[in-house]
Amino acid sequence: MAGEPKSAEDRLIATYFRPFATHPGAFNLTDDAALLAPPAGHDLVLTADAVIAGVHFFPEDAADMVAKKVLRVNLSDLAAKGARPLGFLLTLALPKSAPETWVELFAHGLGDDAELYECPLLGGDTVRTAGPIAISVTALGSVPKNTMVRRSGARAGDAVVVTGTIGDAALGLELRDAVTAAKRWRLDSKHQYQLMRRYLLPQPRNALAEAIRLNATAAMDVSDGLAGDLGKLCDVSGVSADIDVTRVPLSEAAASVVNSEPAAIEQVLTGGDDYEIVCTVPPQRLADFRAAADTARVPVTEIGRVTAAKAPPRFIGRDGKPMQFKQTSFSHF
Amino acid sequence: MAGEPKSAEDRLIATYFRPFATHPGAFNLTDDAALLAPPAGHDLVLTADAVIAGVHFFPEDAADMVAKKVLRVNLSDLAAKGARPLGFLLTLALPKSAPETWVELFAHGLGDDAELYECPLLGGDTVRTAGPIAISVTALGSVPKNTMVRRSGARAGDAVVVTGTIGDAALGLELRDAVTAAKRWRLDSKHQYQLMRRYLLPQPRNALAEAIRLNATAAMDVSDGLAGDLGKLCDVSGVSADIDVTRVPLSEAAASVVNSEPAAIEQVLTGGDDYEIVCTVPPQRLADFRAAADTARVPVTEIGRVTAAKAPPRFIGRDGKPMQFKQTSFSHF
Repeated sequence: MAGEPKSAEDRLIATYFRPFATHPGAFNLTDDAALLAPPAGHDLVLTADAVIAGVHFFPEDAADMVAKKVLRVNLSDLAAKGARPLGFLLTLALPKSAPETWVELFAHGLGDDAELYECPLLGGDTVRTAGPIAISVTALGSVPKNTMVRRSGARAGDAVVVTGTIGDAALGLELRDAVTAAKRWRLDSKHQYQLMRRYLLPQPRNALAEAIRLNATAAMDVSDGLAGDLGKLCDVSGVSADIDVTRVPLSEAAASVVNSEPAAIEQVLTGGDDYEIVCTVPPQRLADFRAAADTARVPVTEIGRVTAAKAPPRFIGRDGKPMQFKQTSFSHF
Repeated sequence: MAGEPKSAEDRLIATYFRPFATHPGAFNLTDDAALLAPPAGHDLVLTADAVIAGVHFFPEDAADMVAKKVLRVNLSDLAAKGARPLGFLLTLALPKSAPETWVELFAHGLGDDAELYECPLLGGDTVRTAGPIAISVTALGSVPKNTMVRRSGARAGDAVVVTGTIGDAALGLELRDAVTAAKRWRLDSKHQYQLMRRYLLPQPRNALAEAIRLNATAAMDVSDGLAGDLGKLCDVSGVSADIDVTRVPLSEAAASVVNSEPAAIEQVLTGGDDYEIVCTVPPQRLADFRAAADTARVPVTEIGRVTAAKAPPRFIGRDGKPMQFKQTSFSHF
């Protein structure tokens, strides 16, 4: 993309993106394509996600947070598959109204995370749009041959395990969407901040990738709500699961919400944007998995068991009965 | 992306996209990520391009043509690098106003080309947007190790060669943008159609990829105008070139335009959207390159020579003098 005389696009790329296109195969973003020599004996793992201003983030969100979020939602997919990040490609559609300071801040955020997650920029495209900012990332990772963790490997008797805490981001989004929520939930400002922060900036579990690869029979990241996502995992695995809702790990802030408004548990379980991992681990691998998670400093919690019959998972509530959800997954469609 | 109950997004994907996600590593689009085992002894070549309704295509363009164009502009990059397509990932941002028939036609076009170019769908993401349709494709290809053709290998004395004909798409776009152009250029309706068709549907030169890999010292696809793109190639190669404008291959339709309006040659050379290839070939490899191009049924034309001093290429006009362009490249920025 270098040239003479430089177009405004070339200048943007050279100024803001080239500094973290540190992979030798990115050729400083001066070629048509990037070159990647995959590690010998490894498979490639590929994922792509797009985010749109006004749909997946608030137009007023800080550009560096937006950049981190779009990269991290892709990194989260790699983590769930047991893959180590190799790099990513970015396409960025910008309206004329986006100031250059937005691009600068966006690039800083992206560059920080590219370094933090060792996932350098390989290439991409910057285009104009008459609509809202639209960002698409394709991330590449690698796993030793034939070790990618699928959604389809769950077996009856496996423990169902989730990382971190569930529901924070969905509650954080509600706090931003509905001004009355904070009052209704009697949340102090620290808890409000923590929940909104979880929506703004996911913490993908890449530190746990190897432990998942070595111990999990199936895994996926929780992006559209635990209930619906676990439903998808059960569906392709041909199994079901019994989940003890009282064991689903909640942050102090989310627990406080559910305490004020017990019905909010449905938002916690179906709201999405968690970017935690749900996986299934055979009982005899649980101790190793827990030890590896400890070492990786990722909290993991067993929330239920895989059962044999192919069916949607049951979320057993405090009353001992399976919960009925209005919808199990978040969907923009 | 399978699940229960299916969201509208899941249903769209299952109905229209799953049929051509034929790569085993696409897992029928039911996992978080795709798996690709790169051919042993090969490097991966990666490219990403985005197109936006109202910027890169007309909102009224047939959806199947839009799909083919976005895949083909990526395939064109792979061809220029000497790479064989392996597959692609797609992110598609759809406004609520896009009817399902649009998605259906889009998927048909994409599926046709995925088969034609042996480049299956590996995965992706479908999202909502409040803006125009936005489409991003990341395409992956492979080359035998260390054989990717860079932009940076051109050497003084190499022949500068282009495929096909130059300028048709830029003139075709002008025909669509300016109702007076057809009259001004005294074009019959067949020629008008041919030029507009070239804008609508590129013909990437993937059939020539191997010949480029075996014979070219540098190559890139012509997407932003021959003058600017060759300028970029010269810049990163540290060379210049003398181009004989009278040898730049024109279609009958484009020749007719330039005959009516000689100044239109500037649009031909700088307008872009050609998706032809410009490459540099050492004199001793020219015969082999021509023979391979004949076999691949891709017309190739020598239009000049690489020269030693690092400088923008000179486009020598009919009057024997270097042309001065208002701008050498098309840019939306």
